[in-house]
Amino acid sequence: MSTSDITRADGRATDQLRPVKITRGWLDHAEGSVLVEFGRTRVLCAASFTEGVPRWRKGSGEGWVTAEYAMLPRSTNTRGSRESVKGKIGGRTHEISRLIGRSLRAVVDMSALGENSIVLDCDVLQADGGTRTAAITGAYVALADAVAWGQRHGHITARGKPVLTDSVAAVSVGIIDGTPMLDLPYEEDVRAETDMNVVVTGAGAFIEVQGTAEHAPFDRAELDTLLDLAVAGAADLTAFQQAALAQELGG
Amino acid sequence: MSTSDITRADGRATDQLRPVKITRGWLDHAEGSVLVEFGRTRVLCAASFTEGVPRWRKGSGEGWVTAEYAMLPRSTNTRGSRESVKGKIGGRTHEISRLIGRSLRAVVDMSALGENSIVLDCDVLQADGGTRTAAITGAYVALADAVAWGQRHGHITARGKPVLTDSVAAVSVGIIDGTPMLDLPYEEDVRAETDMNVVVTGAGAFIEVQGTAEHAPFDRAELDTLLDLAVAGAADLTAFQQAALAQELGG
Amino acid sequence: MSTSDITRADGRATDQLRPVKITRGWLDHAEGSVLVEFGRTRVLCAASFTEGVPRWRKGSGEGWVTAEYAMLPRSTNTRGSRESVKGKIGGRTHEISRLIGRSLRAVVDMSALGENSIVLDCDVLQADGGTRTAAITGAYVALADAVAWGQRHGHITARGKPVLTDSVAAVSVGIIDGTPMLDLPYEEDVRAETDMNVVVTGAGAFIEVQGTAEHAPFDRAELDTLLDLAVAGAADLTAFQQAALAQELGG
Amino acid sequence: MSTSDITRADGRATDQLRPVKITRGWLDHAEGSVLVEFGRTRVLCAASFTEGVPRWRKGSGEGWVTAEYAMLPRSTNTRGSRESVKGKIGGRTHEISRLIGRSLRAVVDMSALGENSIVLDCDVLQADGGTRTAAITGAYVALADAVAWGQRHGHITARGKPVLTDSVAAVSVGIIDGTPMLDLPYEEDVRAETDMNVVVTGAGAFIEVQGTAEHAPFDRAELDTLLDLAVAGAADLTAFQQAALAQELGG
Amino acid sequence: MSTSDITRADGRATDQLRPVKITRGWLDHAEGSVLVEFGRTRVLCAASFTEGVPRWRKGSGEGWVTAEYAMLPRSTNTRGSRESVKGKIGGRTHEISRLIGRSLRAVVDMSALGENSIVLDCDVLQADGGTRTAAITGAYVALADAVAWGQRHGHITARGKPVLTDSVAAVSVGIIDGTPMLDLPYEEDVRAETDMNVVVTGAGAFIEVQGTAEHAPFDRAELDTLLDLAVAGAADLTAFQQAALAQELGG
Amino acid sequence: MSTSDITRADGRATDQLRPVKITRGWLDHAEGSVLVEFGRTRVLCAASFTEGVPRWRKGSGEGWVTAEYAMLPRSTNTRGSRESVKGKIGGRTHEISRLIGRSLRAVVDMSALGENSIVLDCDVLQADGGTRTAAITGAYVALADAVAWGQRHGHITARGKPVLTDSVAAVSVGIIDGTPMLDLPYEEDVRAETDMNVVVTGAGAFIEVQGTAEHAPFDRAELDTLLDLAVAGAADLTAFQQAALAQELGG
Repeated sequence: MSTSDITRADGRATDQLRPVKITRGWLDHAEGSVLVEFGRTRVLCAASFTEGVPRWRKGSGEGWVTAEYAMLPRSTNTRGSRESVKGKIGGRTHEISRLIGRSLRAVVDMSALGENSIVLDCDVLQADGGTRTAAITGAYVALADAVAWGQRHGHITARGKPVLTDSVAAVSVGIIDGTPMLDLPYEEDVRAETDMNVVVTGAGAFIEVQGTAEHAPFDRAELDTLLDLAVAGAADLTAFQQAALAQELGG
Repeated sequence: MSTSDITRADGRATDQLRPVKITRGWLDHAEGSVLVEFGRTRVLCAASFTEGVPRWRKGSGEGWVTAEYAMLPRSTNTRGSRESVKGKIGGRTHEISRLIGRSLRAVVDMSALGENSIVLDCDVLQADGGTRTAAITGAYVALADAVAWGQRHGHITARGKPVLTDSVAAVSVGIIDGTPMLDLPYEEDVRAETDMNVVVTGAGAFIEVQGTAEHAPFDRAELDTLLDLAVAGAADLTAFQQAALAQELGG
Repeated sequence: MSTSDITRADGRATDQLRPVKITRGWLDHAEGSVLVEFGRTRVLCAASFTEGVPRWRKGSGEGWVTAEYAMLPRSTNTRGSRESVKGKIGGRTHEISRLIGRSLRAVVDMSALGENSIVLDCDVLQADGGTRTAAITGAYVALADAVAWGQRHGHITARGKPVLTDSVAAVSVGIIDGTPMLDLPYEEDVRAETDMNVVVTGAGAFIEVQGTAEHAPFDRAELDTLLDLAVAGAADLTAFQQAALAQELGG
Repeated sequence: MSTSDITRADGRATDQLRPVKITRGWLDHAEGSVLVEFGRTRVLCAASFTEGVPRWRKGSGEGWVTAEYAMLPRSTNTRGSRESVKGKIGGRTHEISRLIGRSLRAVVDMSALGENSIVLDCDVLQADGGTRTAAITGAYVALADAVAWGQRHGHITARGKPVLTDSVAAVSVGIIDGTPMLDLPYEEDVRAETDMNVVVTGAGAFIEVQGTAEHAPFDRAELDTLLDLAVAGAADLTAFQQAALAQELGG
Repeated sequence: MSTSDITRADGRATDQLRPVKITRGWLDHAEGSVLVEFGRTRVLCAASFTEGVPRWRKGSGEGWVTAEYAMLPRSTNTRGSRESVKGKIGGRTHEISRLIGRSLRAVVDMSALGENSIVLDCDVLQADGGTRTAAITGAYVALADAVAWGQRHGHITARGKPVLTDSVAAVSVGIIDGTPMLDLPYEEDVRAETDMNVVVTGAGAFIEVQGTAEHAPFDRAELDTLLDLAVAGAADLTAFQQAALAQELGG
Repeated sequence: MSTSDITRADGRATDQLRPVKITRGWLDHAEGSVLVEFGRTRVLCAASFTEGVPRWRKGSGEGWVTAEYAMLPRSTNTRGSRESVKGKIGGRTHEISRLIGRSLRAVVDMSALGENSIVLDCDVLQADGGTRTAAITGAYVALADAVAWGQRHGHITARGKPVLTDSVAAVSVGIIDGTPMLDLPYEEDVRAETDMNVVVTGAGAFIEVQGTAEHAPFDRAELDTLLDLAVAGAADLTAFQQAALAQELGG
């Protein structure tokens, strides 16, 4: 991986990920569970496998995968109020839950899954930027474990057809002081002129591209550079996922 | 503008917008109001100007612009339930409201606006695809009228500094049966493999790029073609906005 | 129609309606839809026809008609907060929704309708007094179109028995500065000592009489005069409804 | 009081009230409290006096009076679900709360009350028809006691100006099997073709007239008879109120 | 009953209950109803019997008993806001509802009850300390009447097996100025260093012991004294329940 | 510590705690944070220190401590629905949040804390019985760290007066198959005839005793044995807390 002359606060090169750690089997009960860390960002991803599908999908022969994202009140620098206490979920929470669900469904063959449901709970234990991208990256691994669980226990009966058609990982990129950078921690994220989250398959194709001009519109050249950074970063994350899944799971 | 040999259900070329209509001053009370139509999609955009800003912004000397998007229950083909009756707003509604607000704020100089607030209500009267892009395109015009109202009535006092630093328009693009197309009506939207909403300034820079693989991941070449289509379509919408704003407003 | 010497702000006689406009087929999707205007008051009435009835009515052989009324946030002079955002519906909204539903059900033969449901959505696009009476008046026309749609499409199978046993229209009356007047716009409504909404059938009988002393109790003689005004005004509205329904509907 | 030949299930004449009982001082804490009974209908009306007014009324020199109506879950024949558990208030509850508040405010001189607030809680302990009219009738007496309390304790300081400009009572009337009748218990109420609630001042003027055709429209002659019955019944209720208020209050 | 030298504000001995009054059949509709009074604390307990059980219990052959507790807004010294208006139930309300339900279920043989449900509504009309213990004590009597109703009407068909295996009563105890006392009214309750609610069967065994150090931790000796007081007080309440149930019920 | 002949599923003696682990400083942002483990039960306790107090306490010179308890959806054996999505908090959640807050406040000298607030968020990451007792035990340690933080940063200014007057720990006890046992995991908890949570100070006094007969009432002798077990278990937990707090905290 090439480096640049720009020095980031944490000493990384502009195209370098923060330290990534993927711990499988973090929970005893869940059919798949992962504690994923992108630097200080820490997200617990739990996959719950249940037989059956929501009513609108019954009889279709197809499964369903959905996700819920939330932040613990003190995951952030100052305490946020608890959404269960406020009695409603904020727009950002909804939006990210929907994004995670869509990203995972893009690599699931629903007919191979059969009439089973998998819910991914992505709870941010500590937030330092990139929580949604860490959540997608970790959730894919938890999903893979839950699918394997469903196969071992005979709930997934399709033969020869893989349930997961590819893997999926996500990473943030942004432009800070005019320089495109990979995997922004909180302090960079708030200063970014442009902020982009990119969801990429293991094969390198795009599932989702969400770029937002926070402080200044961006032009086509900047967009191209950001996409290059993101695709390379996602490839690194894919390697971390494969390494994690290659290990024997104790529990 | 080039055309292609592909025939769309409504006879348009792949790079052609649906008929666009922007009616200013549709409401008597609002400081700015626009009925915007992209084909059969019809969105009423009302801009409400109020002196003062939310508490967290008081004393900053800066203004604030926000948006709320909603659909009438029978704007769609089958009646949806009313969010006020359900007692909560869905994730999609939140997400689009936030997108519209961000898009408009990107072209507002908040210190030139001064401590004034403008709320854009974008209510979809009839939905036929592209409601969020029509809403952004129409809301910009209503915003411009509300800013002019604030200047005429002496609430905006900045001299020499324009409140609006540029215009903003939005359009959807997507890949249907392998062909990239501009401005998707509902029947194309549901079939699209990839769906992208692009928000572009009058100067042609990006404010927001949101591409989603609905049925199949997309590669870099497809992404490039979609962006080309969107930038050209947005330029056409900018021209419609300018023409509308050039007219004398009766009320 | 007789006139009086009192001059109203808009030049009308005390027993004169504001200009009434009933536009059928304003929406492409709804089974019946009307944009009704009483002066500057503008209400979009959409009738949604669905086969089947709520659970408590299943097997009865009878249909059901209900209504939901709402105001767009910027329909009024100053922006109101959106009920879907507040997460609950105000008392006034509930009350008017119930009134519209009751008024329409009074002219429907539920067994002739059969086990079908019609929901009337009455969304106030612009409010200038009399929104509930305009809503009832317009909703009747949308209901008539939805019933006709149900008959054309074979969902209503009763023969010889009309579904609509009569028409229904509504109008407001009130006492301003001691003078009873018909069809109050907002500026008269807030000043009225007594305010009354009257719902009348095409045959001239009462469905609902709701009189409220806003600033001073009213006596029997005043009540009688108000009822006279209302009955005459409702007859005029019935004529507008008949004229609208007599026209050929394009869509 | 004249009687008719019609025999009602409970043996009353058509123009006769059910047994009325007004017990003042039913609660120890409230500034005014009344248990009012119309036959088996039993409503507990508590008036809470507090210094100060809602924010929007501060500095006006005027007071405010409002009411909240609710039914205990087992006040009715079959248990209803608790609105606090459902998390929202039904339309009927809202509508009646608003009616009670309006009716009481019509006899209050807000500037004589000064910047004080009185809330009337009307909780239906047992329901057998006419709960809203019993609530208004009882709430007036509780209000009178709360006003007297405010005067005794020096919170109401206006001299020479009575706070209560008149008394207010309410009664239901309806047409059952073609016969107009006074004060309907539940079993008559459900059968009524037309149902009307009338709120009348001690002086005999109308504060509110709410007539609804439940099963058949009503004509002018029927309306006139119903109003006659209601005015006479309300006069009887006024006498009961005066008798109750003439007694020495123990607590 | 022994007395102590301590004089309480209301003249009671430390081990003496306030005057207890249990009025059965206070409501006409409910299958069991009791107005229970512990001094000025007044709770209306209504038992609603319905055939059938919640879905999760269907086919089990067993019944279900649950409770809902609530306070009228003006039951207390200053008016509280209505939970139905706030749209959610507070923690204390939930906690007490659950306690009452658990306490009653402890003396019900669910298989003898059969697939029937009984809901106990405990509404506090006036609060002066000990509302939850009065509610449990009264609710038991209402429950007994509802069970008898179910037997008389043939809904409970078990023979030879009593539905109620014992009775249940509850009382509060606490330490005020270092002295353990029985049955605390509000003014003692707020001053108590320790506050305990004890639920006891007719046979003298514990169903629930809830002791809380409000202002100072308590030691084992104090705990023992409080339990002695509570057991004796509960025995007195059991006698009141038996006496009430021994009377012929009019309605 | 004595042992008994009874063999528990996990091999413990009846008076033995599960393995206890208290990890301080588990979060980077919180002023105090602890991951506490009682066997497989894992609770993350975060203490948030803020200057100032709620409005009702302003100017009192005293601080405030409160707690919120919640379970992650997949902390349990089968996934529970997310309370933020349901839009309301269940009774059990409320009850436990209140218990934790009361327990901690019992050992805080509010005037020594001064006008500062500390919120304890106790989020159950994995549940295997005893989540509320683990939460209290861990929250005390997080609270101690937050108090120390407040002192180090000059927000707590009281001199000579300790803010924490004692420590607090909690443990569950219960009767299973007639045998009293300490610290119940889930599989024992569901089978317990009686279940008790006891909150004890470091000095060995009671703060809270909550005993519930789940399947059979309990007598005085059983209650005494349970209390003995709990006091001894709490003493062990106090030692674990002291050991954890004696260590140097890295972050």
